[in-house]
Amino acid sequence: MNRKSDKPIKITEVCLRDGSHVVAHQYTEEQVRPVARALDDAGMHYIEVSHGDGLGGSTLQYGRSLVDELKLIEAAVEECRQATVAVLLLPGIGTVHQLKQARELGAGLVRVATHVTEADVSAQHIHAAREMGMETLGFLMMAHMAPVEKLVEQAKLMESYGAQAVYVTDSAGALLPDQVRERIRALRQALDIEVGFHGHNNLSVAVANTVAAIEEGATRIDGSVRCLGAGAGNTQTEVLLAVLERMGLQVGIDLYKMMDIAEDIVAPLIPNPQEINKGSLVLGYAGVYSSFLLHAERAGKRFGIDPRDILMELGKRKAVGGQEDLILDVAAEFAKAQKREVKG
Amino acid sequence: MNRKSDKPIKITEVCLRDGSHVVAHQYTEEQVRPVARALDDAGMHYIEVSHGDGLGGSTLQYGRSLVDELKLIEAAVEECRQATVAVLLLPGIGTVHQLKQARELGAGLVRVATHVTEADVSAQHIHAAREMGMETLGFLMMAHMAPVEKLVEQAKLMESYGAQAVYVTDSAGALLPDQVRERIRALRQALDIEVGFHGHNNLSVAVANTVAAIEEGATRIDGSVRCLGAGAGNTQTEVLLAVLERMGLQVGIDLYKMMDIAEDIVAPLIPNPQEINKGSLVLGYAGVYSSFLLHAERAGKRFGIDPRDILMELGKRKAVGGQEDLILDVAAEFAKAQKREVKG
Repeated sequence: MNRKSDKPIKITEVCLRDGSHVVAHQYTEEQVRPVARALDDAGMHYIEVSHGDGLGGSTLQYGRSLVDELKLIEAAVEECRQATVAVLLLPGIGTVHQLKQARELGAGLVRVATHVTEADVSAQHIHAAREMGMETLGFLMMAHMAPVEKLVEQAKLMESYGAQAVYVTDSAGALLPDQVRERIRALRQALDIEVGFHGHNNLSVAVANTVAAIEEGATRIDGSVRCLGAGAGNTQTEVLLAVLERMGLQVGIDLYKMMDIAEDIVAPLIPNPQEINKGSLVLGYAGVYSSFLLHAERAGKRFGIDPRDILMELGKRKAVGGQEDLILDVAAEFAKAQKREVKG
Repeated sequence: MNRKSDKPIKITEVCLRDGSHVVAHQYTEEQVRPVARALDDAGMHYIEVSHGDGLGGSTLQYGRSLVDELKLIEAAVEECRQATVAVLLLPGIGTVHQLKQARELGAGLVRVATHVTEADVSAQHIHAAREMGMETLGFLMMAHMAPVEKLVEQAKLMESYGAQAVYVTDSAGALLPDQVRERIRALRQALDIEVGFHGHNNLSVAVANTVAAIEEGATRIDGSVRCLGAGAGNTQTEVLLAVLERMGLQVGIDLYKMMDIAEDIVAPLIPNPQEINKGSLVLGYAGVYSSFLLHAERAGKRFGIDPRDILMELGKRKAVGGQEDLILDVAAEFAKAQKREVKG
């Protein structure tokens, strides 16, 4: 494999964070402990534990956790001998206070996440995390929504705040391999810090995207065992590791143990296997937040519009999280236009 | 998208053939009819209908079909207004007589399939199919097992017998995108006929492999709705179409209708969603036939050996279908070696 970096690849397993969406944030301590222990034993580098929407995500809006995420973080830390427990923090959802609590429980790394065009809201949290002595990385979500120059500008902001790496975060699973290449390459050229990639599988190219990112020099890589994550799930960790080994790249994680964790420990935790169904496919195709899907289906029913047309329009308008009102507006507009057509 | 061919892409939907493995060949006429009708209505070009192992596959060895495949072929033909019904034929399993029966029922295209190094056994069947006036394509299975020069040599044989296209058939889902590129490119340079690609998703790169094949000039492309197929399934048709549209390539098939078929007609037919589990992953990683898995698991149990080690060794030895005996030999060898180690 031709890699444009000589730094080692560091994998972050996100099945206990992004995967939390798959179980509606109902993870228990009894579930988290064996997963963390086995991942640690397999040699996993980082294990992210938080509500699916990051620290403080347990709300009516984002879905209440069954167990306080701080309890789950504490449990994971107790199980790990070598792996670092990581947390996710979205400024506006999680607070510096919550980060401090996670830090005190032993979390060693934080990804501070913002929409791809809103890096400026991460300054305070990145500063605070660095002051706490945490490894501090920036996470630019919905990365497909910004032109490459904008992405670079925003990543440089995060770097200037003290981030030690910045991720291209393909939250909607909307990027294709060449688009990932272009983005990673641009960040590698513009930044002095490491570059990362977090993929989703809505278009079935998460593994291919991740390999493309690694070839271009990304060294911070996310995966999720058995594909557990929002939408169609993330880059499937054990599959990625198999592909990397086939390409001659060893990352120091035991492949057989990872396969066993997927089959014997993680698969039994989830209600339904991850697959690319109509909903997750259209999210990737339209390039919109997974939280839009249910709203679009409801609005579609109410106005007699195909929810896919609504989602495609939202993608075109580059709607972002929190703009759920726009869904009703678009549906109403479409219904009006249809009526005019029928009349005309 | 930069395509190295100006011929139109023709898609063959294989959920009623390769997908037959997923339902243990228990498809009924009542299931096949609505699938064929809806695919035809969506604009699908070819719909393959046969036992998972091709015409004549309904045997004790390959699994008995619930319904005679000729009945299913006839039903599919009756439902299609524009799509061509295709069949698969593996010389040694299916016969020219069975092909003639399928032809008389209205099948218009046949893929004559051999192991990648055994194209010579296809001569008689390709001749016969051409004489029947069928569109006749060659299918080189387990394409990862042969060096590129060997693949080219074998494809040229099929061309010389009268095949109108030859497929790179990644039966084990063991190829990576660059390997697909290399193979398609070599065939495009060496052949005057069209080149095709049939992928499996065991390493989660079936869609990426298929896009790579198309970019290199492959024009005969297989997909399976909802990923239905042996191992981890095939290139998921509706996802591939979404990706191609995102890349600016229209193939004349209705994407929304394909999404609906996947969700509303095909998904309800299968007992479990297709996912990449330990078994299918190790098949792709080792590059062996899916039929080896169960045998390796049994042999592993009997001799106290990890079945993955057996499969990896079979991959190294380039074991082919029919060599199931080798599985026991390898397991016994490994067990003996282990014993020696313990003693020594």
